[in-house]
Amino acid sequence: MNATGIIVEYNPFHNGHLHHIKQSRNLTDADIVIAVMSGHFLQRGEPSFADKWLRTEMALQNGADIVVELPYAFATAPAVDFAKGGVALLAALKCRALAFGSEQGQIEPFLATYDAIEGDNATFQKNVQHAVKSGLSYPKALNSAYSQMTTKNNGSFADLTQPNNILGYHYVEQIFKQKSAMQAVTIPRIASGYHDHILAGTTIQSATGIREAVFDGSLQDVEAFMPASNFSLLQQATLMNWDVLYPTLRYMLLRLSPSEIAAHAEVTEGIEYLLQKAARTSDTFTQFMTRIKSKRYTWTRLQRMLTHIYTGFTKAQLIEASMPHYIRLLGMTENGQRYISAHKKEFTLPLVSRVAAFDDPMLSQDCKATDLYYLAQQRAPGEDFRRPPIRI
Amino acid sequence: MNATGIIVEYNPFHNGHLHHIKQSRNLTDADIVIAVMSGHFLQRGEPSFADKWLRTEMALQNGADIVVELPYAFATAPAVDFAKGGVALLAALKCRALAFGSEQGQIEPFLATYDAIEGDNATFQKNVQHAVKSGLSYPKALNSAYSQMTTKNNGSFADLTQPNNILGYHYVEQIFKQKSAMQAVTIPRIASGYHDHILAGTTIQSATGIREAVFDGSLQDVEAFMPASNFSLLQQATLMNWDVLYPTLRYMLLRLSPSEIAAHAEVTEGIEYLLQKAARTSDTFTQFMTRIKSKRYTWTRLQRMLTHIYTGFTKAQLIEASMPHYIRLLGMTENGQRYISAHKKEFTLPLVSRVAAFDDPMLSQDCKATDLYYLAQQRAPGEDFRRPPIRI
Repeated sequence: MNATGIIVEYNPFHNGHLHHIKQSRNLTDADIVIAVMSGHFLQRGEPSFADKWLRTEMALQNGADIVVELPYAFATAPAVDFAKGGVALLAALKCRALAFGSEQGQIEPFLATYDAIEGDNATFQKNVQHAVKSGLSYPKALNSAYSQMTTKNNGSFADLTQPNNILGYHYVEQIFKQKSAMQAVTIPRIASGYHDHILAGTTIQSATGIREAVFDGSLQDVEAFMPASNFSLLQQATLMNWDVLYPTLRYMLLRLSPSEIAAHAEVTEGIEYLLQKAARTSDTFTQFMTRIKSKRYTWTRLQRMLTHIYTGFTKAQLIEASMPHYIRLLGMTENGQRYISAHKKEFTLPLVSRVAAFDDPMLSQDCKATDLYYLAQQRAPGEDFRRPPIRI
Repeated sequence: MNATGIIVEYNPFHNGHLHHIKQSRNLTDADIVIAVMSGHFLQRGEPSFADKWLRTEMALQNGADIVVELPYAFATAPAVDFAKGGVALLAALKCRALAFGSEQGQIEPFLATYDAIEGDNATFQKNVQHAVKSGLSYPKALNSAYSQMTTKNNGSFADLTQPNNILGYHYVEQIFKQKSAMQAVTIPRIASGYHDHILAGTTIQSATGIREAVFDGSLQDVEAFMPASNFSLLQQATLMNWDVLYPTLRYMLLRLSPSEIAAHAEVTEGIEYLLQKAARTSDTFTQFMTRIKSKRYTWTRLQRMLTHIYTGFTKAQLIEASMPHYIRLLGMTENGQRYISAHKKEFTLPLVSRVAAFDDPMLSQDCKATDLYYLAQQRAPGEDFRRPPIRI
């Protein structure tokens, strides 16, 4: 059986994702689509809008055959490590292709960009150093260095100022670095609001747009942007954002000492004092973010620090999390189950269906993140221990 | 001016306390009554029922001339350290007497008990060791050892199975150990429900009974048990108990690692695993306590551990807090202010009226405890920095 992998957040699943799954399957002639999905905390340093089990169900009902969890350590990491974890899991699951959406829409520019950067890595690193010294944040410095090496040949390199292109580039990079046999494939991303003739009668809206509409109280308005089954799942969901977590984050920032705050992943350079000061005076998350935002750090970077403080994820844990230790199965279709039965012996990482049966600090952090997410919604912890993979 | 000291919690202030202040003043012929009062966390390991500022106002309106705060490190400690901090502050404030309520009601048995125990400390320590080995908790072992040395002479020793006698004994002990010139005086405690002829027309109810009635929704029922001015203050108060703090405590117990939990004051002997397990399965504080309670630990001891986990107070901080570093002024009457002006130069610890002007880790913990108490009520932190002492 021929499996194609995708790396997703589904926050929440919408028509654009449906299009992406269909195209991935068609373009790679896949029997199986395997989604590596983030759990309850995401790459932009945010809690997921809806529960990971609900998002798993959404994916399985709309074209994914297997959903596995991207461990917390990778799901909440900068693009390079996010990609590293996702690619490693898909490779371990013996996918033949990795399909990603991108603004670029063609794979060749990504390959050319990789060759250009790896072909003269010394110059690239020098450009990064130079950009950091000139005052850019590290992600911006990376982008600037990429741009300098890839703008001369107009159109033949990927435009790395576009967010999906950046992720795509890192997927390609990781496929090479991990010496994986997977083929990289890209699908043109359909812009928000674009009325797609491939999916007649459906409308694309970004996940951000959907979340904003729901939090503004317009749940009905988003019905057009997602498959009907997902909409009914979303109607039952307890939704989450940073506003819900903020009272507990605030408690945490005032309870911990500055050095305890500084021990968390991505917290650097004395920002712990600013975090405490802002927590003292800010009654809402928006106020708080406004007070800590500066040129030095991106909004995303700040939110990732806060995610790690909320879930208690330290620099020491980050260092130990260099590669995934396991494949955590969240759900599967009957088709997915057949693939697992047929190929399980080839998988290069242990497949975990029952958390209690696999003792590992990386997995403990995933379960802890779930517990602390649930507690903020007055739901009982321990869901990851009780719940078997979803089967549909 | 002749000052008498008292050590109190006022949780909340009631007619029994009014009686205690009046009698303390009369018996010692005092011009001034100085109350050392606990802040937001108390000796039984509980958050105070009402705000410390409100309790300060209650005290000043009913006979106390000066209220100073017993630092967190002592206010939440076992009786011996609670007494140590209180006695040290009253001595630093140049009180000539310390007056405490007791079941015993006479001071001689306390002095005789102290002489008996100190006169043969080797036997006493041996008795304690023996009781611990026989399986008693440390507080029970102390009591058992006291009893063995003081029961032979019926009536001439203090009955140390009574809670107020135990505190009283430790006050007397600390006066001797700190070589203080203060005179110890005791006032018979009036039992709950006793209709007191000294305070004609008033009724005594214990603070515990008052809190229970209020949380049962019967605020009006407690009006008879306290001065009228206090009742109107209490009607405006946001009330607190462990049920309010439990969701955050639960988050904390699931977020911290076992070794991080074990680093907190009074947490010993592997109980961190039991705390985590019980937090996982308990939706309410009562459920939680039922699951962690055993013969090994008193309810009070367990609650103190939880208080320290909630406020982030560690074993290391406890070790550093051997004696109070300052006198934190919470409020004063005009009379109290005159005493302070006249005697300030004789005080043996710095008098702190403005927290921002005194940088000290023990004081930081007091302010942090206030912040974390307020956050649980959705109130702004920083009150201890903004608020000057109350003057009435």
